[in-house]
Amino acid sequence: MYQGPGKKALVECPKPVITVPTDAIVRITKTTICGTDLHILKGDVPTCHAGRILGHEGVGIIEEIGTAVTAFKSGDHVLISCVSACGKCEYCRRQMYSHCMNGGWILGNTIDGTQAEFARIPFADTSLYPIPHGVDEEALVMLSDILPTGFECGVLNGKVAPGNIVAIVGAGPVGLAALLTAQFYSPAEVIMIDLDDTRLEVAKRFGATATINSADGRASERVMEMTNQQGVDTAIEAVGIPVTFELCEQIMAPGGVIANIGVHGKKVDLHLEKLWDRNISITTRLVDTATIPMLFKTVGANKLDPKRLITHHFKLDQILDAYETFDNVAKSKALKVIIEP
Amino acid sequence: MYQGPGKKALVECPKPVITVPTDAIVRITKTTICGTDLHILKGDVPTCHAGRILGHEGVGIIEEIGTAVTAFKSGDHVLISCVSACGKCEYCRRQMYSHCMNGGWILGNTIDGTQAEFARIPFADTSLYPIPHGVDEEALVMLSDILPTGFECGVLNGKVAPGNIVAIVGAGPVGLAALLTAQFYSPAEVIMIDLDDTRLEVAKRFGATATINSADGRASERVMEMTNQQGVDTAIEAVGIPVTFELCEQIMAPGGVIANIGVHGKKVDLHLEKLWDRNISITTRLVDTATIPMLFKTVGANKLDPKRLITHHFKLDQILDAYETFDNVAKSKALKVIIEP
Amino acid sequence: MYQGPGKKALVECPKPVITVPTDAIVRITKTTICGTDLHILKGDVPTCHAGRILGHEGVGIIEEIGTAVTAFKSGDHVLISCVSACGKCEYCRRQMYSHCMNGGWILGNTIDGTQAEFARIPFADTSLYPIPHGVDEEALVMLSDILPTGFECGVLNGKVAPGNIVAIVGAGPVGLAALLTAQFYSPAEVIMIDLDDTRLEVAKRFGATATINSADGRASERVMEMTNQQGVDTAIEAVGIPVTFELCEQIMAPGGVIANIGVHGKKVDLHLEKLWDRNISITTRLVDTATIPMLFKTVGANKLDPKRLITHHFKLDQILDAYETFDNVAKSKALKVIIEP
Amino acid sequence: MYQGPGKKALVECPKPVITVPTDAIVRITKTTICGTDLHILKGDVPTCHAGRILGHEGVGIIEEIGTAVTAFKSGDHVLISCVSACGKCEYCRRQMYSHCMNGGWILGNTIDGTQAEFARIPFADTSLYPIPHGVDEEALVMLSDILPTGFECGVLNGKVAPGNIVAIVGAGPVGLAALLTAQFYSPAEVIMIDLDDTRLEVAKRFGATATINSADGRASERVMEMTNQQGVDTAIEAVGIPVTFELCEQIMAPGGVIANIGVHGKKVDLHLEKLWDRNISITTRLVDTATIPMLFKTVGANKLDPKRLITHHFKLDQILDAYETFDNVAKSKALKVIIEP
Repeated sequence: MYQGPGKKALVECPKPVITVPTDAIVRITKTTICGTDLHILKGDVPTCHAGRILGHEGVGIIEEIGTAVTAFKSGDHVLISCVSACGKCEYCRRQMYSHCMNGGWILGNTIDGTQAEFARIPFADTSLYPIPHGVDEEALVMLSDILPTGFECGVLNGKVAPGNIVAIVGAGPVGLAALLTAQFYSPAEVIMIDLDDTRLEVAKRFGATATINSADGRASERVMEMTNQQGVDTAIEAVGIPVTFELCEQIMAPGGVIANIGVHGKKVDLHLEKLWDRNISITTRLVDTATIPMLFKTVGANKLDPKRLITHHFKLDQILDAYETFDNVAKSKALKVIIEP
Repeated sequence: MYQGPGKKALVECPKPVITVPTDAIVRITKTTICGTDLHILKGDVPTCHAGRILGHEGVGIIEEIGTAVTAFKSGDHVLISCVSACGKCEYCRRQMYSHCMNGGWILGNTIDGTQAEFARIPFADTSLYPIPHGVDEEALVMLSDILPTGFECGVLNGKVAPGNIVAIVGAGPVGLAALLTAQFYSPAEVIMIDLDDTRLEVAKRFGATATINSADGRASERVMEMTNQQGVDTAIEAVGIPVTFELCEQIMAPGGVIANIGVHGKKVDLHLEKLWDRNISITTRLVDTATIPMLFKTVGANKLDPKRLITHHFKLDQILDAYETFDNVAKSKALKVIIEP
Repeated sequence: MYQGPGKKALVECPKPVITVPTDAIVRITKTTICGTDLHILKGDVPTCHAGRILGHEGVGIIEEIGTAVTAFKSGDHVLISCVSACGKCEYCRRQMYSHCMNGGWILGNTIDGTQAEFARIPFADTSLYPIPHGVDEEALVMLSDILPTGFECGVLNGKVAPGNIVAIVGAGPVGLAALLTAQFYSPAEVIMIDLDDTRLEVAKRFGATATINSADGRASERVMEMTNQQGVDTAIEAVGIPVTFELCEQIMAPGGVIANIGVHGKKVDLHLEKLWDRNISITTRLVDTATIPMLFKTVGANKLDPKRLITHHFKLDQILDAYETFDNVAKSKALKVIIEP
Repeated sequence: MYQGPGKKALVECPKPVITVPTDAIVRITKTTICGTDLHILKGDVPTCHAGRILGHEGVGIIEEIGTAVTAFKSGDHVLISCVSACGKCEYCRRQMYSHCMNGGWILGNTIDGTQAEFARIPFADTSLYPIPHGVDEEALVMLSDILPTGFECGVLNGKVAPGNIVAIVGAGPVGLAALLTAQFYSPAEVIMIDLDDTRLEVAKRFGATATINSADGRASERVMEMTNQQGVDTAIEAVGIPVTFELCEQIMAPGGVIANIGVHGKKVDLHLEKLWDRNISITTRLVDTATIPMLFKTVGANKLDPKRLITHHFKLDQILDAYETFDNVAKSKALKVIIEP
């Protein structure tokens, strides 16, 4: 539970109850921690107030459904989307669930989340996804947020295509999720850029064709060398600070796309004096999780192994240790941690 | 002829000659002046050196063709694209003629242009377009640059669609070209924003459903009022300075597009701290003139009347007056001027 | 009420009641008759049994809502989609409401429809659309089915684009709906083909640039003449018999699209021996009504006037006369009839 | 050399010469035989007359260039596209090189082809592709026709996407080319259907997830079983006879695509009485080879190994044996044969 900036605690809470007929109560069997949870704990997310149970990812078993829920019943195994979608508003119609006028990213933000024994999930019919029997549920926790984020905001927006050259700036969990899903489209090269050699090593194992440690400030120069001074077709920004976004601007080939995933805290310089005539696109997106069904199919077909992102396991009563591990990456080398009852 | 920053002159020159077999010599029957020509005269375009004949727009009659030209013959009436396209390189294959590796925007920039009696047109087969007999050639001068620019960089990149709300920032000739061609797609509203009431009046006549004079600094607020605080689906930037680009950022609906046309001289602030989760796109483009054939058809079918952009006529020997008129808009109310022998 | 093949009657029925929480009861203020209703009466629609109240179009006022309906309340003015969409299934997620696994076209087919004083509308939240105060509701009846059908199945599937050449085969109400909405995209030419000169006259008034009476069997030849032997970019089939579909095959330009709207009762010959190398597409679609919100906006902006399709008015107790009129087009010249209480 | 229906011969011919300035003479280092060559030999291709040197695939070294050729010089290693593209006409502009108004598929059809020591290649600048030093040229012969055919007509037209289910009807060389390139997009399943178990075995090795021998007439039934009665998202027709096309019709999921590759000699039955409301597309295409540059990159990046299609090698003076082998597949198990001087 978020206790105000800088403070968190493991707290005994009453079991949540159905409050509107479209709710479901889910017994959480696996959840995880997201970088956004760390942002909340720093006090960076003003919509999230003290007393909030964090967490917007997870799988579980339906404990109880509201009277208007028709797609699920008690006992169903489900994947929880990080985005709650009413399924009715203009944005839900367009599959922009992130901008649902009645939901959006509310779990573990404006309502209690999934880092608990039970969670109330609004709009259950359109915010939960059935898990077939026999599937490894742990892997699917990665489909709540991180893999759709890398895929939708990075790969789809970035129009990754066969034979193309892709650069991903940031080899954290989200950048690696983009790397894993970029390979659905057989790009010729995926260049991974980060400050941390350990993460770049992971990126190589995950399929990066080249890596660049940008510590020396020469990343842009090196990308241009690698691409015969042409630049890249797609640059995926997975950090969220001005210097990494500007790096993306510097390595754009004519006709290319900068697909921003990073959560930015301040403005960046857009060098239109250089880019106005370059026929490029820049995209932003909050994950819609509209591709969860597609990702499910790729996992089922062994085209994607989400478990590669999981490095640590904790029990729910060790969740403060889990936060410690996830926050202290330099020491722990953590990517994603699984938390289970 | 450009004579160095701030200087221009009408000069007697030798008639141009075929220099490579893909050239054609065109006798210019109508040409015009572009805002870019004014930029060159201010010394803002470093690729253009003193002694250059300006002009990259026009229609004319083929005087002579090189031995490799097969699509045209002497006497053919032709429209000149502002972009010279070799038709062979990777970018030409993708119809990104603006980035042609052997041509691009070179006319009146790195080679002599069309504000003359004759012009040498490189890559004639892929840079000229046949004009059917009986067509009003004066109107077609607008298809060399300004209408494709408004259409490709603004309307197509901006994904203007039936029922959508469009804002165009800048009611100069290019903004008005975007306004005229946006109507191909039946948007519900086109809001025109400018500092000049005279131009906003023109915009109304040309089909704008609303106009805003942004002099009071409240343009963003008013657009949000007009759109029930939703913002616009498409914002077309047709000025090229930071304040107008930032206005576009402020009025974006989720899922919208900022289509930049403006030629920017310096960087702008991109407020990713507000836009990172808004599912928007920002596009840039140098006109490719790939849509000239499509525009031809719309003119032929009376879906577009390019002559509405023409306000003044001059003889070639009055070209210095023409420049005066085109540059001094406050007084002349000029949009586009026609210059003819 | 459908009474079995060839038989219909005006019958006193009990007022419908809410049967599941997502239902709404709508008091019908305007409805109409569709060509499909005539098919049902001929016994051509095996899913529709005797005793069924027909009708799948209309506007009305909400009388009562089920407990799970959240987007509407009693007294709201609403437009009824001909397709009932659960909003939750895989197809609804993809906006293919026509293939909703829990709904689809059921109104006036497998459940009672709208040609009555009251109708029960399933999945009200995702199958009804709010009508703003002050809007002409009569016009909106045309948005229940016929205009989305012409637009989605004909114009969108047919990729109608500025400057293109379009042929529409069949100038009945659906063909005319395609004609009206094709003009959203400013095609250069729309050639309307039919056997009935009266309807072709209507087509001319509605914006067709040319008309062909195909009675002499030379329609294909004439289209080729009109297009310099190139053929058309888009052919919209709005009849549903082999001869009209084959006409579309004969007039295809390379790269073109045949967009089928017609309800076919038997197979057609596809001349792949001629078409295999022509780079064409053929599309089929049952209307999804996913574009109702877009069409609403175009009506509001005066880009589309649906009332042009309305030729006759009847009271509900004259509905048998309305059927007579609608079925006997040769005499009545009817396009669409409005039926009101 | 084609000698009229049923007759072929190896004949001594004069070396071809440059006839127009855009020609190049290429010394053929590797060529192959296409199924289309067999069609010609049966007399099925009326545009091809007796006395014609066959062959439209190959790699070689430029011997001589015309005066208008600028992209190549003598000694360059090049890949020959099966389609000759002028690069200037309306269709070339749209990358529909197959319908080039001045070229198209003419090599080994209306002009002499590549199964010779030397070949004259028209429009050399836009019909040849440079081969980097050190690349395995034998593999690239597969990029002249068969791989772009499978990719463009089957995979791209078929909109193969991550997680989708694809069926390919016909496991001959073209069907296998579609199979290899479909995997660029990570479909969940690729079901290969053929009458020949040997070819189905090859398909399994090439990545098919399931195979069906359709000899028992139950292929459609089995596909529906494999897909939970849903059908496939994409069906690629790679045979060219009515029964295989109708199989594709039977296994379409709503919203799916039938991508025809097969060269059809007669019409097929299109069951619009079943398909009119299924929201499907049917596409046809003659290969444009517009994707050769993309395919080049995927070969360079080891995403595609074209050599898997090559089963036999012959010297040019054994070409009659090569034809025998390629035509008698049941015995030879040949896929593609390489012919070299």
